[in-house]
Amino acid sequence: MTVHLVGAGPGDPELVTVRGAKLLADADVILHDRLAAPLLALAGANAEIVDVGKAPGSAPVSQDDINRLIVEHGRRHDCVVRLKGGDPYIFARGAEEVEALRAAGIDYTVVPGISSVLAAPAAAGAPLTCRGVTHTFTVLSGHTDPATWAAGYAEALVSLGGTIVVMMGAARLARIAEHLIAAGADPATPVAAAHSATTPHEVVARATLGDVGPALLASPAVFVIGEVAAIDLR
Amino acid sequence: MTVHLVGAGPGDPELVTVRGAKLLADADVILHDRLAAPLLALAGANAEIVDVGKAPGSAPVSQDDINRLIVEHGRRHDCVVRLKGGDPYIFARGAEEVEALRAAGIDYTVVPGISSVLAAPAAAGAPLTCRGVTHTFTVLSGHTDPATWAAGYAEALVSLGGTIVVMMGAARLARIAEHLIAAGADPATPVAAAHSATTPHEVVARATLGDVGPALLASPAVFVIGEVAAIDLR
Repeated sequence: MTVHLVGAGPGDPELVTVRGAKLLADADVILHDRLAAPLLALAGANAEIVDVGKAPGSAPVSQDDINRLIVEHGRRHDCVVRLKGGDPYIFARGAEEVEALRAAGIDYTVVPGISSVLAAPAAAGAPLTCRGVTHTFTVLSGHTDPATWAAGYAEALVSLGGTIVVMMGAARLARIAEHLIAAGADPATPVAAAHSATTPHEVVARATLGDVGPALLASPAVFVIGEVAAIDLR
Repeated sequence: MTVHLVGAGPGDPELVTVRGAKLLADADVILHDRLAAPLLALAGANAEIVDVGKAPGSAPVSQDDINRLIVEHGRRHDCVVRLKGGDPYIFARGAEEVEALRAAGIDYTVVPGISSVLAAPAAAGAPLTCRGVTHTFTVLSGHTDPATWAAGYAEALVSLGGTIVVMMGAARLARIAEHLIAAGADPATPVAAAHSATTPHEVVARATLGDVGPALLASPAVFVIGEVAAIDLR
């Protein structure tokens, strides 16, 4: 009677943790996100598989429904895995799922995953920090329209002088770049990007902040902005 | 004749990736950091183990010597694992090691690891991002004395309004807190912290920015500063 929130990592099934792989092999039920589907190869033969993913354009399973489903399965089965893309606590609503389990009195564990915050820059060959370049990186969500950023937010990003990692930002990258440039960022700032990092669909690109254009890479993609993006360790 | 830079993760051997575990089992030689030592349990029986860790107070192996060692072993063995605490590209000098391998013409791969950036907040029960709280987090190194921060850096951290994650900051946390408060941070800002997260020595603590004191938790520790630290999902 335990629900395990397991971070699936970026997509490559070998990038899940050893604990995550063991739990997938043992699970009675696996409730998975769309991007975590390749990891179902690690599931036991008798596991019940429930797709709670939100495919673009299809009717999504609401977060309330997901919370309800994990609670219901948690009440009925010994070992339930809630398999989440990336890491459960980074842009993944893991906190809300844990709160639903706590409210229902169901035991849970949280197993971290290799977030795309780490995997995508590595795939693109750009380290997030680098001695002599920067010791700071900021991660933000491209789901937030930069027009709604708080006053001073873009200026603060620029003035930190660290690496900026934009998650889920494929659709808004050009607008984010405009806002950063308007806040004082150099248009020549290097950008490294990875689409579907670590999967068979991986595509890597390089640009500068001034020429990212409206469609540098399609979703899902991660963009690394800053001097580290001039490094290419592929 | 390949050197694999493998992220060991935070300490719990089950939190290495499946690929990392396979490479440890196959390695002819493993060159490991001190904090990654528990993962040597996953090494094959005939693997040569080389400790290149930097224990506090002992004569350190210099980065130049580490670079030289991985190149030498890479020339002599089929499968060399350079096992690094956390993730190879976050405060880990992985970029320098890859550059040394490239300069020597030796094949390499980089396998991401669960950085303490992810594992420590999870152990402390605080998500890095949370809907309705914040969609931004900034990670910085406590090895940098805040007295040497660039002008406007502390103000930018505060004005971003996101989560601040201080890595390797046990010794300087109180001074970092003073600088953030001087830059406008509320002394009541919650702080969640984890020492040796995911290991048998794990200790978790809570405080506020105004009362972190000089010794909230000993090194190695990660500090999470911001409204998400008021959440406790343990």
